[in-house]
Amino acid sequence: MTAYDRLTARFARIATVGEAIAMLGWDASVMMPPGGAAARGDQLAVLSGLVHELTTAPALADDLAEAEQAPPADAWSAANLRLMRHRYLQSVALPSDLVEARSRANSACESIWRRARPASDFAAVRPALEEVVRLTREAGVALGEAFRMSPYDALMDGFQRGVRAADVEPIFSHYAAFLADALPRAEAIQAARGPGRPLQGPFPVGVQEALCQRLSAAAGLDYSHARLDRSAHPFSGGTPTDIRITSRYSEDECFQSLMGVMHETGHALYEEGLPPAHARQPVGEAAGMAAHESQSLLIELQVCRSDAYLSWLGPQLHAEFGGDAALYSADNLGRLLRHVERGFIRVESNEVTYPAHVILRFRLERAMIAGDLAVADLPGAWNEGLKGLLGITPPDDRRGCLQDIHWYDGAFGYFPSYTLGAMAAAQLMAALRADVPEVDEAMARGDLSPLLGWVRREVHGRANLLGFNDLMRAATGKPLDAKAFETHLTARYLTA
Amino acid sequence: MTAYDRLTARFARIATVGEAIAMLGWDASVMMPPGGAAARGDQLAVLSGLVHELTTAPALADDLAEAEQAPPADAWSAANLRLMRHRYLQSVALPSDLVEARSRANSACESIWRRARPASDFAAVRPALEEVVRLTREAGVALGEAFRMSPYDALMDGFQRGVRAADVEPIFSHYAAFLADALPRAEAIQAARGPGRPLQGPFPVGVQEALCQRLSAAAGLDYSHARLDRSAHPFSGGTPTDIRITSRYSEDECFQSLMGVMHETGHALYEEGLPPAHARQPVGEAAGMAAHESQSLLIELQVCRSDAYLSWLGPQLHAEFGGDAALYSADNLGRLLRHVERGFIRVESNEVTYPAHVILRFRLERAMIAGDLAVADLPGAWNEGLKGLLGITPPDDRRGCLQDIHWYDGAFGYFPSYTLGAMAAAQLMAALRADVPEVDEAMARGDLSPLLGWVRREVHGRANLLGFNDLMRAATGKPLDAKAFETHLTARYLTA
Repeated sequence: MTAYDRLTARFARIATVGEAIAMLGWDASVMMPPGGAAARGDQLAVLSGLVHELTTAPALADDLAEAEQAPPADAWSAANLRLMRHRYLQSVALPSDLVEARSRANSACESIWRRARPASDFAAVRPALEEVVRLTREAGVALGEAFRMSPYDALMDGFQRGVRAADVEPIFSHYAAFLADALPRAEAIQAARGPGRPLQGPFPVGVQEALCQRLSAAAGLDYSHARLDRSAHPFSGGTPTDIRITSRYSEDECFQSLMGVMHETGHALYEEGLPPAHARQPVGEAAGMAAHESQSLLIELQVCRSDAYLSWLGPQLHAEFGGDAALYSADNLGRLLRHVERGFIRVESNEVTYPAHVILRFRLERAMIAGDLAVADLPGAWNEGLKGLLGITPPDDRRGCLQDIHWYDGAFGYFPSYTLGAMAAAQLMAALRADVPEVDEAMARGDLSPLLGWVRREVHGRANLLGFNDLMRAATGKPLDAKAFETHLTARYLTA
Repeated sequence: MTAYDRLTARFARIATVGEAIAMLGWDASVMMPPGGAAARGDQLAVLSGLVHELTTAPALADDLAEAEQAPPADAWSAANLRLMRHRYLQSVALPSDLVEARSRANSACESIWRRARPASDFAAVRPALEEVVRLTREAGVALGEAFRMSPYDALMDGFQRGVRAADVEPIFSHYAAFLADALPRAEAIQAARGPGRPLQGPFPVGVQEALCQRLSAAAGLDYSHARLDRSAHPFSGGTPTDIRITSRYSEDECFQSLMGVMHETGHALYEEGLPPAHARQPVGEAAGMAAHESQSLLIELQVCRSDAYLSWLGPQLHAEFGGDAALYSADNLGRLLRHVERGFIRVESNEVTYPAHVILRFRLERAMIAGDLAVADLPGAWNEGLKGLLGITPPDDRRGCLQDIHWYDGAFGYFPSYTLGAMAAAQLMAALRADVPEVDEAMARGDLSPLLGWVRREVHGRANLLGFNDLMRAATGKPLDAKAFETHLTARYLTA
């Protein structure tokens, strides 16, 4: 057995414990009675501790050093060995007392935030957030030293390997300039066209749930390896051969669950499409959060909100919910599902304004980690930033800098993934249309197999072999930029 | 930190991984899509391997030796330390290649058995069973050397600590003699009284499920720490603060689910009643399988089939299922739920004949492990043994020695727990009636709290502090024997 073989066995074992963690996390959100929470927290902490011990084992470090003397020749194994070293460095870079202090500070801050948000009381959570920022910066410094990059880049790298703030800033600036011009024009066109006519409910929950599962299966998700359940906050979890997606339902409307399930289906298809030959190895994983979001948004935004797909979807919905068939025309569904509006809340925004919310957060979190923005100055900087991007000012911090859980739970460097993913989805769709011209015709028949075949080959099948930028280059011929996304929005929103 | 403190931290960690294993096992039976099975097998194997590594760690052995130099003074900690040593010896006694060989042989034999049973083809599974018996005997010898007992006693000790074949044999012989006289008398009395009149279905599955949960909650199970779900084979799993019980339902009848859920509720109440102060320590666990079965059968047999409880249950059932109220009288329900019949199948038998099925298996498995009975001679010995105990001979091996999964899956020494549990339940009920005379009056109002209060104190609250025999002595004033059970059956079945 070579050192590299021993490493693959070690990392397979670590990944298998990770799968157990994923399943227990799913259960906690979907099944667990409330009284099980304390024990579940302990179970997750013990398993995470074991993952950390296994990853930082001195014998693993010895195997790494030995394998690196004569790295494997094939590209997948060579990349896998580099990723193993990366994973090892990530784990040893952070002293365990810092990991524990962050975990405690994040939990404490998050629970204060849960009360502070509805009360719009930033002052109440400010000291806790200051502590979170301090410890996050400390972690960023430690990781940055290990990987020779800035603290913020090191944090972002943990969510999206290989993406730097210096890559992101010009893409985001380009979009901000585009938006300043495009948003008023989109609003004017929308006003001239008039609003969509709402569907008539009620939409029985059981009918919605069965429909969501049917549409998600029709998109290609194999339910012999997946489940759809209910949870308060929809998510996609589980493992590549046992995927768990969730949704929530309201009798009053059907689009939230439908678009939510299709979004999670995009994540699930990615996991299901990872190459089994590299399962449980770092190189066999998905290529990070921006890549993952590109797959969920490819389905949710590029496919499900397209005229072609809506022309097929309308009759499916009408067959389930009945009422006036004209409400289910592609034209009316498009007006309902592609409504543009300037709002304060990121998760309620639309694909045109969503990036503005992300750009704001990217700039602010980068400044906080660099020490250029004090937590005390966050509310003011937030309101000023949103005014500059969307021309509106939140009436209170509840609808401003208190709205998202991320920072209060210690996640810095995550936000850019959302918009990088949306842009990547548009760039992938453009490349796909060029390669597979019949894709829209097939979507109009509800057939996503040409699309799925292409992303299986160009994205899913490459797993974590390339960084995000090289993956985009391999699949679309160039690194990510904002142009395909702007072209997509221009076609969808700026054409009268 | 003393060596004993370090040990409690080690064993808490081991138990916490065990909880993760329990939850993943529940999910595999209740939720998992079929495609998840292979990965789940790996997850359980890796976590079990980690439990074994943590339990046999040299540093743990050092802590044990150091702590035993000056054992803790209080009874719970002293018992805990002894159980830690016991657990350590169990783990190190078996070489890991034997553990793996058994696991493979058991899986192979079980899968052959799944085809051989319906075909009634003992010859097909015989070689695989011979291998299982050979390896099980080898494990019994290794454990027996570690604990200075016979191989069969060592295997039985793994399921029910402190119970020896020499304790069991006289109890079972006493019952066999009782049965020879009692069974024909019970049949004659039953024939004279006439059969019960069956309830009229259908029994809608949703109604049954809600009723089962309501009755189980009424018996004391706290559903903020529990769930009731469906599975092909009902069981009780999870952890003491997150209990998962399951059932299956048929529209055609309601007693299978009802009595099944109440049986699992008994197991669940035991887990829920274990003292939180000793959670995750060996001394804080349930006192083995016979003790566990005493708690499930206390609820299922002693309570739920009693005249007092049935007089309350009848109107509950009638309110749900409607029809002729006379069918729901305690008298008619008693005839239906206490029907005695000689049959070939253990799991379809009744509380009078069930022990005969267990006595047969106990004698045969003990002889196989001792080398006194060859696997090739099992079918003949089975048929002869059943003839001697119940006076009937199975027409084929499907209804004979092929009926139960246990041996074919490598479980030897488990069967006695069922009947020891049934006898213990009767002995506990007699002691409880003496201590708490109002218990039957309360049961007739559906109120199990006097019963629950007593078993919480006398059984659940003692956890694993005493062995099974000492637990029975503490709770009932004497070690287990067959008398209380025989007295119970005499009152229930031999009184015209």
